[in-house]
Amino acid sequence: MNAATKFARLGTDNAPGQEARLGEANGAWLRGEPLPGRPVDFSHGDVDAHPPTPGSFEAFSAGVAAGGAQAYTEYRGSAAIREILAERLAAFTGAAVDARDGLILTPGTQGALFLSIGATVSAGDKVAIVQPDYFANRKLVEFLEAELIPVRMDYAGVASGAGLDLTQLEEAFRAGAKVFLFSNPNNPAGVVYSPAEIAGIAELAGRYGATVIVDQLYSRLLYPGVTYTHLRATMPDNVVTIMGPSKTESLSGYRLGVAFGDPAIVERMEKLQAIVSLRAPGYSQAVLRTWFDEPAGWMADRIKAHQAIRDDLIAGFRGIEGCVVRPADAGSYVFPRLPKLAIPPQDFVTALRTQAGVTVTPGSEFSPHATDSIRLNFSQDHAASVAAVERIAALVERYRA
Amino acid sequence: MNAATKFARLGTDNAPGQEARLGEANGAWLRGEPLPGRPVDFSHGDVDAHPPTPGSFEAFSAGVAAGGAQAYTEYRGSAAIREILAERLAAFTGAAVDARDGLILTPGTQGALFLSIGATVSAGDKVAIVQPDYFANRKLVEFLEAELIPVRMDYAGVASGAGLDLTQLEEAFRAGAKVFLFSNPNNPAGVVYSPAEIAGIAELAGRYGATVIVDQLYSRLLYPGVTYTHLRATMPDNVVTIMGPSKTESLSGYRLGVAFGDPAIVERMEKLQAIVSLRAPGYSQAVLRTWFDEPAGWMADRIKAHQAIRDDLIAGFRGIEGCVVRPADAGSYVFPRLPKLAIPPQDFVTALRTQAGVTVTPGSEFSPHATDSIRLNFSQDHAASVAAVERIAALVERYRA
Repeated sequence: MNAATKFARLGTDNAPGQEARLGEANGAWLRGEPLPGRPVDFSHGDVDAHPPTPGSFEAFSAGVAAGGAQAYTEYRGSAAIREILAERLAAFTGAAVDARDGLILTPGTQGALFLSIGATVSAGDKVAIVQPDYFANRKLVEFLEAELIPVRMDYAGVASGAGLDLTQLEEAFRAGAKVFLFSNPNNPAGVVYSPAEIAGIAELAGRYGATVIVDQLYSRLLYPGVTYTHLRATMPDNVVTIMGPSKTESLSGYRLGVAFGDPAIVERMEKLQAIVSLRAPGYSQAVLRTWFDEPAGWMADRIKAHQAIRDDLIAGFRGIEGCVVRPADAGSYVFPRLPKLAIPPQDFVTALRTQAGVTVTPGSEFSPHATDSIRLNFSQDHAASVAAVERIAALVERYRA
Repeated sequence: MNAATKFARLGTDNAPGQEARLGEANGAWLRGEPLPGRPVDFSHGDVDAHPPTPGSFEAFSAGVAAGGAQAYTEYRGSAAIREILAERLAAFTGAAVDARDGLILTPGTQGALFLSIGATVSAGDKVAIVQPDYFANRKLVEFLEAELIPVRMDYAGVASGAGLDLTQLEEAFRAGAKVFLFSNPNNPAGVVYSPAEIAGIAELAGRYGATVIVDQLYSRLLYPGVTYTHLRATMPDNVVTIMGPSKTESLSGYRLGVAFGDPAIVERMEKLQAIVSLRAPGYSQAVLRTWFDEPAGWMADRIKAHQAIRDDLIAGFRGIEGCVVRPADAGSYVFPRLPKLAIPPQDFVTALRTQAGVTVTPGSEFSPHATDSIRLNFSQDHAASVAAVERIAALVERYRA
């Protein structure tokens, strides 16, 4: 396949944050007048409403003051910072982290995701991917000219856990998938895999000799009453865990992520990082010194603030007749399935943006079977996001089939 | 090819900056005692000796203060910053730059290089690459499972220009290479392509419909008397130019690069960036506001300081009998070819590190035909680097064949 053909499949027009590149809607099919209200961009979190961890800028400044030693680190990141993080990540996940050989710092969690897949998947390989899941997973597999085997997750059909179809996962392994990639908590649905589901994944991957890449980006923003199970504490080998301080901690402007686990895979990831971006930003790496070391009570307050927004938005969506929605177990996503509309889903997303000042990500980015859903990142101003969901409800009625 | 096999070829053990991961030399074959002196790491520039552009940290701080608007930009980078840069890059290169569609900000110049190759080369494609040239060029082609066609450059055999073999370049195009990738000034040799060479590249690429990616990372650090020709001013289509403020401007700790040119290729690069790292660091992007807007006289002083170091190091290498060296036309690399030694080149590099406190990059990273050369980045403390070259000369005598 030539490069032009390959890239024609990798659409990013509807990717979160790229709305600025979309033209204005041709108004002919729009119904009624625009709805007034403060615009809300639910495509990503609002780091002005939920500001970065205290001390992060000071840590960056100290990195600049350190000069060349912080600007130029090993490709896998500063050894001193890896030492600090390895201990904290081990405590958080319940299994040892090898600071020298089993941990790499990356440009954003996206960087960690690319490197882990790029280091384990080649052209023609089969990769098991959950549907729905983070939109880049599928695109990464396509860029590498590998083959995707979808595994269903019926998050709306279960009251707890993710609703992963373990039978389909086994079929994927039996069909030759050597890598399984999933996010936990799930992006976009916000659900957390149950202990039994994690045990099932570990058992199957072990039996079929598969590598598992688990994206735990939102695993710190856990709501009360939810049990979170770290795969790496259950499955010692062939696992790469991905995290980063971009979301809960609002440090996205520094572009930082980490991946940790199997040293053989981390070594390949560093080789790939060497030719893709060399290293995570030198000075920014210093900001990781603040990670898992937030002021007392800070994380609890952040979780409480997000829980309150979540509950109000869920109530808003439940007020829409025929809308199916499940509260997030963790993280800041909500993924409501809308009732049947008279216009195509993509047009409704356009109507939301042009008529309601509300930017959401279409469900088709996450699964071909989720075109009737929309994803909202509710890490936003509380009042503005509640009002925005009221406008979504109003537009659903306007365009209802 | 499976991922493990593919990565076995992508060695980074001898890549610049990775020396910390090499073990200590087994001393049995080492001759004589260590030489005293301040250690110098010539594998990359010393940003403490040549500090970042004035105002860069203040620009970063303003980016943090701007909050979400600077943290989250389009994947191709902030539109406002692209507007500013497009004008300055057009003035520098002598051809218009399309701020909206023809320019992308990347995590380091390495990011721009990966994206431009990843966006134009697929598995099985043929890519023409200069020998010697930047070590990552070859590795990128290998990662993409494409085929490398080498094109010779006899920089030591000519007094000016790069000594590119245009006949071999035409043969590469005739053999099916659809992409030609080269650095100008050349890394590692520091030579600048002559106007006739650039015209020849443009003519051949045009005739064979090839895309050209030109890495101009060091093109601002130009020594007096050298004419620099921008390919993009000669060849309007199918060219991507790569630059960044990491070197001359010592802004490497912020990890910033840019690529500009053909909008169709830039669009693909953005799609790839979306899945590789999302975007260049949000806050760091703000530092680009200082680029090409340095205080009056600052760039002239920086060039003068580097010219003085260059001249002293060249004199040092010319004092070694049998050493072949050509002064850089631009940039901060020197690539001396050493006389015949009694130990393998890789062992001599190890001896330099362990016995002389001098870190250099082996020539084999840049070309299989340059194993007898070493690369030094002379953006260093002046006195320390002169003393380090004296120690190199002493070790050459100690290990001379």
